[in-house]
Amino acid sequence: MGLFSKDIETLDDLFVHTLQDIYYAENQITKALPKMVEKATDPELKAGFEKHLRETEGQIARLERVFEMHGQEPKQVTCPAIDGIIKEANEIAGDVADKAVLDAALIAAAQAVEHYEITRYGTLIAWAKQLGRSDCAAVLAETLTEEKTTDETLTRMAESRTNAKAEAVTEPA
Amino acid sequence: MGLFSKDIETLDDLFVHTLQDIYYAENQITKALPKMVEKATDPELKAGFEKHLRETEGQIARLERVFEMHGQEPKQVTCPAIDGIIKEANEIAGDVADKAVLDAALIAAAQAVEHYEITRYGTLIAWAKQLGRSDCAAVLAETLTEEKTTDETLTRMAESRTNAKAEAVTEPA
Repeated sequence: MGLFSKDIETLDDLFVHTLQDIYYAENQITKALPKMVEKATDPELKAGFEKHLRETEGQIARLERVFEMHGQEPKQVTCPAIDGIIKEANEIAGDVADKAVLDAALIAAAQAVEHYEITRYGTLIAWAKQLGRSDCAAVLAETLTEEKTTDETLTRMAESRTNAKAEAVTEPA
Repeated sequence: MGLFSKDIETLDDLFVHTLQDIYYAENQITKALPKMVEKATDPELKAGFEKHLRETEGQIARLERVFEMHGQEPKQVTCPAIDGIIKEANEIAGDVADKAVLDAALIAAAQAVEHYEITRYGTLIAWAKQLGRSDCAAVLAETLTEEKTTDETLTRMAESRTNAKAEAVTEPA
């Protein structure tokens, strides 16, 4: 939640701060995804990351709409959580040579990103409702649905094709 | 996934490395939870964090069992993701004065931790199965069930009592 939490006195402040946190996170994700597209070997995974990049751009626009609805300028605050998650993704993507194993690692990294977004949007929606802003909650819920769908797609891919290839490489026994 | 990912060549290596990652994460969580217990005001939330601390100790023992089953010494590798998530939790816990708002922030922080664990255990279970280690998968699945239950409890608390108090404080309009 970044460095500005001394300004947080009310639930409304906390809501705005967390909007700024996820706004930063989404922007970092748009920088990380092209590298993941490049690293991925499986065509379905590559296409999935490309689709999610376009979705993330839409999610940023949606956050800007929520800032406006709430009378706030869109602003980012550094989010150490997403920085750590992306750092892990980059480390793993840089160091695994086997392509099927790398795809499995990329899926795991992407699911960590999705789960961070799922928890933050879930929290924001709960707080928006409590603040009487069901209009903001409805916009945020559109993104939450997208994130959950992406996570389910990645789970399906992890459990089937990509890892089956990795298994073939790693399981002579 | 830490600094040792150059050693990862097979899905088995990736499985062991991610075990080490979550083993580090669980150990960091046992250090973070007592501070969250101390900061929480709501008795139900405080008790929930205490319960989760005991559960986390059991989850660490379970991971040590999986290491042993897989013929590995338990070892931790630094996990920048959990470090970032806990850093955010500490920042927010240190800086919000209003107790009801602080409880809401603590719930959100705890849910971010839970979602990190949910995604990593989900991945480990999928890989264990693909490696023909359904015995390891079964042990890891016990923890995943606990983590999901904790997350659901936190969601229920976020949507009801604790934040209702925060709303009362912050919503004169």
